[in-house]
Amino acid sequence: MTRNGNSGRLHVPSREIPIPHFLSDAASIYLNPQAAPVAYPEVEDKAGWRDYVSKVDQAVLALLGQMMRQVPVDTTPLEIDGVRVFNAVPEGIGSDSHGIVLEIHGGALILCGGEMCRIMAMGTAARLQRPVWSVDYRMPPNHPYPAALDDCMAVYRALLRDRAPANIIISGGSAGGNLAAALVLRARDEGLPLPAGLILATPEADLTESGDSFHTNLGVDPALRSLMPVNLLYANGHDLSHPYLSPLFGDFTKGYPPTILTTGTRDLYLSNTVRMHRALRAAGVPAALHVTEAGPHTGFPGAPEGNAIDMELRLFIQTVLGEG
Amino acid sequence: MTRNGNSGRLHVPSREIPIPHFLSDAASIYLNPQAAPVAYPEVEDKAGWRDYVSKVDQAVLALLGQMMRQVPVDTTPLEIDGVRVFNAVPEGIGSDSHGIVLEIHGGALILCGGEMCRIMAMGTAARLQRPVWSVDYRMPPNHPYPAALDDCMAVYRALLRDRAPANIIISGGSAGGNLAAALVLRARDEGLPLPAGLILATPEADLTESGDSFHTNLGVDPALRSLMPVNLLYANGHDLSHPYLSPLFGDFTKGYPPTILTTGTRDLYLSNTVRMHRALRAAGVPAALHVTEAGPHTGFPGAPEGNAIDMELRLFIQTVLGEG
Repeated sequence: MTRNGNSGRLHVPSREIPIPHFLSDAASIYLNPQAAPVAYPEVEDKAGWRDYVSKVDQAVLALLGQMMRQVPVDTTPLEIDGVRVFNAVPEGIGSDSHGIVLEIHGGALILCGGEMCRIMAMGTAARLQRPVWSVDYRMPPNHPYPAALDDCMAVYRALLRDRAPANIIISGGSAGGNLAAALVLRARDEGLPLPAGLILATPEADLTESGDSFHTNLGVDPALRSLMPVNLLYANGHDLSHPYLSPLFGDFTKGYPPTILTTGTRDLYLSNTVRMHRALRAAGVPAALHVTEAGPHTGFPGAPEGNAIDMELRLFIQTVLGEG
Repeated sequence: MTRNGNSGRLHVPSREIPIPHFLSDAASIYLNPQAAPVAYPEVEDKAGWRDYVSKVDQAVLALLGQMMRQVPVDTTPLEIDGVRVFNAVPEGIGSDSHGIVLEIHGGALILCGGEMCRIMAMGTAARLQRPVWSVDYRMPPNHPYPAALDDCMAVYRALLRDRAPANIIISGGSAGGNLAAALVLRARDEGLPLPAGLILATPEADLTESGDSFHTNLGVDPALRSLMPVNLLYANGHDLSHPYLSPLFGDFTKGYPPTILTTGTRDLYLSNTVRMHRALRAAGVPAALHVTEAGPHTGFPGAPEGNAIDMELRLFIQTVLGEG
C-alpha cells in the first residue's frame, strides 16, 4: 500500500455545490461566493502588510460596525499592565458578575485590532451574556511572535490578581483560538492556575496547516483561504509547529481546563477543530464538540443556526462556573 | 439575496486530495481510491437486487471474515419471537453482565444479513467489550419497510421482558443507525421505556439525502455514494421523510435517551451526523459528538484513530449504565 504515492491521492472532479434548502435565510447569506480576496504581499514587505491590514480592516469594520450599532453592550477602554483591553459589559449584567470572559479576538493574527477589537468584544459579550475583557494585543508586521502571546499572558496575570481562576473563562475564535489555546498552555507551563473553562471557536490551532480540510474544504468554505504568508510573518523565524504557535501540538496530559470547541462542516478549519478536540480527549480532558451543518469559518452569527451554538456556549459557561 | 439562485451555488474546481501525512498506516488504507462500485439495478427489478446483494455481500464477507478470524468473541444464534438474533459475548465477559448492547447492523438497509450480521456482531462485542444481541432483521427486496423496524421492535420488547431498560444500550452504524434511531422514536411513541443510551455511528438519519455533505464530500469519501435507489426500494412507497424512515425529522422533545454520535470529516454522512446531533441538542437531549480527522464513512476500524473512538463509546456506556 503506497500511502504517499499516487494511489492515496483522490481525484475529485469539479462540481457545483448548492446551498442546503433547509438553512435559514440569515445563514444562507454566509455561503454566497465572495469577491476575490486582497492579495497577500511578500512576507518581507512590511509596508505592504500595513497596507493590507488597513484595507481589510476597513472593509470588515464597515460591515461589523453596522451590525453592532444596536447591540446593548457598554465598552470601556482599559490599560492593564501596559496592554490595551476593552471591557465590554452587556446591559443588565453587573460588572460584579460572578464570571468574566477573557476574550482573544480573531483576525488571522494580523487584523481586527483597535476599534475592531472593541466592536467584536461587544458581540462576544452580547452572545455570551457575560462581562468581557478583550485583549487588544500587538500584531505584525511591527510586533511578531511572541508579542501577542506576551500581551495575553500579561492580562491573564492581571486578572488573576483580582479574580479566582475558577471565575475566569478564556475564549478565542480563529486566530484568537490559536492565542487562547497557547495562552493556557503557557500559563500552565509557567505555573499559573488554569481558568475554569476554555472556548475555542474554529481555532487556528495549527499554523503549519497540515489538516485534511485545508484540502477538502478549500473553496467549499467561501470565506477563508490558506493564511501561510501571514503565519510566516507572525512566526518571524520561530518554528511554526512549536506548541505556543500551533497549540494542537501541545501536551495536554499535564493539565488543561474543560473546553468547548465549535466549527462547521464547510469550515476550512474543520480539521483544526476536530483534531484539537481529539487531542484533548486523548489526554482525558473534558471537551465537547459542536459542528454546524454547512457552517463556514465565519459560522452563522445572528442566524438561528448560530444562536443554537451560542446557547451551547452559555450552557458551557454556566456549567464550568458551577452555576448549573 | 437570491439564496436558491445561481449566486448561492459555489463552483469548486477539480482537485487532488492527498492523504494527511500524520495518519497511521492502518488508517490511510481506508482512504485509497476504491474500485468502481457495482451498478444499482432498477428499483423495480427484484431479481436484480437479489443479485446485487449477493455480489456485494460476498465481497464484504471475504474482507471481514478474514479480519474477524482471530477475534475472541463467542456467538450463538437465537430466535427471539420469530426474529433471528446473534448473541455475541467477548471472552472473559460473563453473559450475566450488567449491560447489554442491542446492535442493529449496517449495510444500506439491504446488505449484511445472516453470516455478515454474525461477524459484525463479533466486531461490535470486541470493540465495546459488552455482550451484544444483533438483530438479523428482514430486508428488501423481499421485505421492505416496515419489516426491518418491526423486527427490531420485537427484539427490543423481548429484551425488556428480562432486563431493566437502564441496562440496555441500543447501537447502530450507518443503515443500522437509521434503524436504531427510528426504533427509539417508535418505542417511545408506543409507550415503551427508553434504553439507557443510544450509539449512532455515522447514521443514515435522512433517507431524503438532503444534507450538505452529500455534495461536499461526494468523491471525497472513497467508500460511499448516494443510496437513493436503495432508499426507494426500502421505503416501498412510504414517505422517505417520515421519522420512522428518516429519524432526523423526529420530535426529540418528547423523550430521547443520552446519545453519542460519531463521524469523520470525509464522511458522506457528516451532515447526517451533525444534523442529528444538533436536533438532539435543540431538544435538550444529552448528546456528544466525536469526529475523526479525515475519517470516511467506514471510519478507521482497527487503526489507532478508530480505537480512540471505541474508547469514547466504552466510556459512554460506562457513564449511562452508572458504572462511572
